[in-house]
Amino acid sequence: MSQSDNNNIVRKVKGGKWVTFRPDIKIHDCTIRDGGLINQHCFDDEFVKAVYDTLVAAGVDYMEMGYKADKKIFSPAEFGKWKFSDEDDIRRVVGDNATSLKLSVMADAERTDYHTDILPKDHSVIDCIRVATYIHQIPAALDMVKDAHDKGYETTLNLMAISQVQDRELTDALDAIVQSPVNSIYVVDSFGALYSEQIHYLILTYLRAVEGTHIDVGIHAHNNQELAYANTIEALIVGASRLDATIMGMGRGAGNCPLELLIGFLKNPKFHQRPVIQCIRDHFVPLRQKIEWGYMIPYMITGQLNTHPRTAIKMRAGDHPDDYLAFYDQMVEEE
Amino acid sequence: MSQSDNNNIVRKVKGGKWVTFRPDIKIHDCTIRDGGLINQHCFDDEFVKAVYDTLVAAGVDYMEMGYKADKKIFSPAEFGKWKFSDEDDIRRVVGDNATSLKLSVMADAERTDYHTDILPKDHSVIDCIRVATYIHQIPAALDMVKDAHDKGYETTLNLMAISQVQDRELTDALDAIVQSPVNSIYVVDSFGALYSEQIHYLILTYLRAVEGTHIDVGIHAHNNQELAYANTIEALIVGASRLDATIMGMGRGAGNCPLELLIGFLKNPKFHQRPVIQCIRDHFVPLRQKIEWGYMIPYMITGQLNTHPRTAIKMRAGDHPDDYLAFYDQMVEEE
Repeated sequence: MSQSDNNNIVRKVKGGKWVTFRPDIKIHDCTIRDGGLINQHCFDDEFVKAVYDTLVAAGVDYMEMGYKADKKIFSPAEFGKWKFSDEDDIRRVVGDNATSLKLSVMADAERTDYHTDILPKDHSVIDCIRVATYIHQIPAALDMVKDAHDKGYETTLNLMAISQVQDRELTDALDAIVQSPVNSIYVVDSFGALYSEQIHYLILTYLRAVEGTHIDVGIHAHNNQELAYANTIEALIVGASRLDATIMGMGRGAGNCPLELLIGFLKNPKFHQRPVIQCIRDHFVPLRQKIEWGYMIPYMITGQLNTHPRTAIKMRAGDHPDDYLAFYDQMVEEE
Repeated sequence: MSQSDNNNIVRKVKGGKWVTFRPDIKIHDCTIRDGGLINQHCFDDEFVKAVYDTLVAAGVDYMEMGYKADKKIFSPAEFGKWKFSDEDDIRRVVGDNATSLKLSVMADAERTDYHTDILPKDHSVIDCIRVATYIHQIPAALDMVKDAHDKGYETTLNLMAISQVQDRELTDALDAIVQSPVNSIYVVDSFGALYSEQIHYLILTYLRAVEGTHIDVGIHAHNNQELAYANTIEALIVGASRLDATIMGMGRGAGNCPLELLIGFLKNPKFHQRPVIQCIRDHFVPLRQKIEWGYMIPYMITGQLNTHPRTAIKMRAGDHPDDYLAFYDQMVEEE
């Protein structure tokens, strides 16, 4: 594809300029779901309710409540309730959710008993099923998308670890995905490894694949290189319309694109920053004293090496959490 | 200028691609100079020597030692020695600097007794005088550039608070600057207010202004919106070749582009990341326990409002450093 073709695609989907906004942009908050990866999904109802109320007040479009993990694989004795997001637990927080905020759950391919645990839509307060998949699980993921669609849900397909996917595999995957009833497909930079030029390329690749369909494109970024917010903006400039974010960037390891920064950037007057800042003051500053997330050198190292942050998380929980040099040497040695 | 003209300029100056590098890229470390704004420039010699040794080992091109402030305006009793960067103080750390690392000092327009305090080059171990100026001080700044150039130094002109400069003023300023003997001109995002598209536009504007001259273009970014590193990359992609950074992003308020991230991005094999990580472990992690810098919500607020971070710095040093909401309300009220 030539540079000029690229520019045509970019211009076509790009409605906003310096002082206007794109009404197609939707923010998908993942605070409880991605943040749950730090604390085994053990948020109490009061905290989840505070996030819910904040997102309603802030004009955010979607809130992800947690995972729909298979209880035969993951023991409810070992994980908090937002690992499973049972209907009763969600309803205890949101009631019948008589708001404009839509609710989602994340269903991991091959780790979700979706035939059983995802109820027909008319029995659920959930609006959207987000299917998370690695490239080799695409057939399983597409079956989950079909199941959720047939039950009456909106669906997304979140292709994880995209920084390790080869172009030839991606082409095959996109060919299959665009034949499905999915509503959105996501570029998921699980390792926080991507630079803006790579985000630009991937979003363009997705946009070309979905051209002529009803499918839109989303971005889920991680902050290993302090690029989660910048890459989210880059994705939206190129034409992504589904933007994942979390309050104060809370999420596994280096965390995610901070919702407060994103709302500060977006010009749609339906979004409000003040409730998010209030929630940060009242709930997230105290929480950050107890559990750790956010950019720091060990996560930079795993991000730059394009690898899973689990080694850095383990190092930070170990006996020498500040010995960045020993960690660097270990990681470079293992590469 | 049309989009296609823009692309031609970008392509012309952009030598590097996915796996190559641009040999024209120079890194200018500002750790001691910008970091000095946090602690009244009171670093001890051992710390400055550790930074110096690290930069030599890392292959960095320039190190900024501090300011050349006028002692008639600023009392040496109130500030540390790196506010003044006397020749003897610098030499006590670097000797005759028999390394490939060049040394600079920053000279603020209208706050530097440059005729007296900037020695002839053959009496100084300093290589480069960086003149910092606001838009209304350009005539004074250009006289300082001429003075330093006549004395035998490399020079840069760092146009501060660029996010508050109008295009019509910038055009006039650039017209005057390109007539001077300056070696480099910098886009300085003092307030951390700019997004990548604005950086893109400004770097292109500078590049067009210097076309046909010997002058190159630099970027100095702040991290108020977690964009210092991302904007530095954006600037270099467009064609900037002088990149300011600091170790662990140390600098006033939200800090600067972190050197370790930048070296992780650049592919020139002369740059080495390991010495920087070692220096962070040994010196900057302990220092960060004593003095504060880096991205946080109050700096996000001043950045998004395109205003000086001094209010946020004062708030963080006050009685209610975590009351982000009160600060938000105060700042929005004052706007």
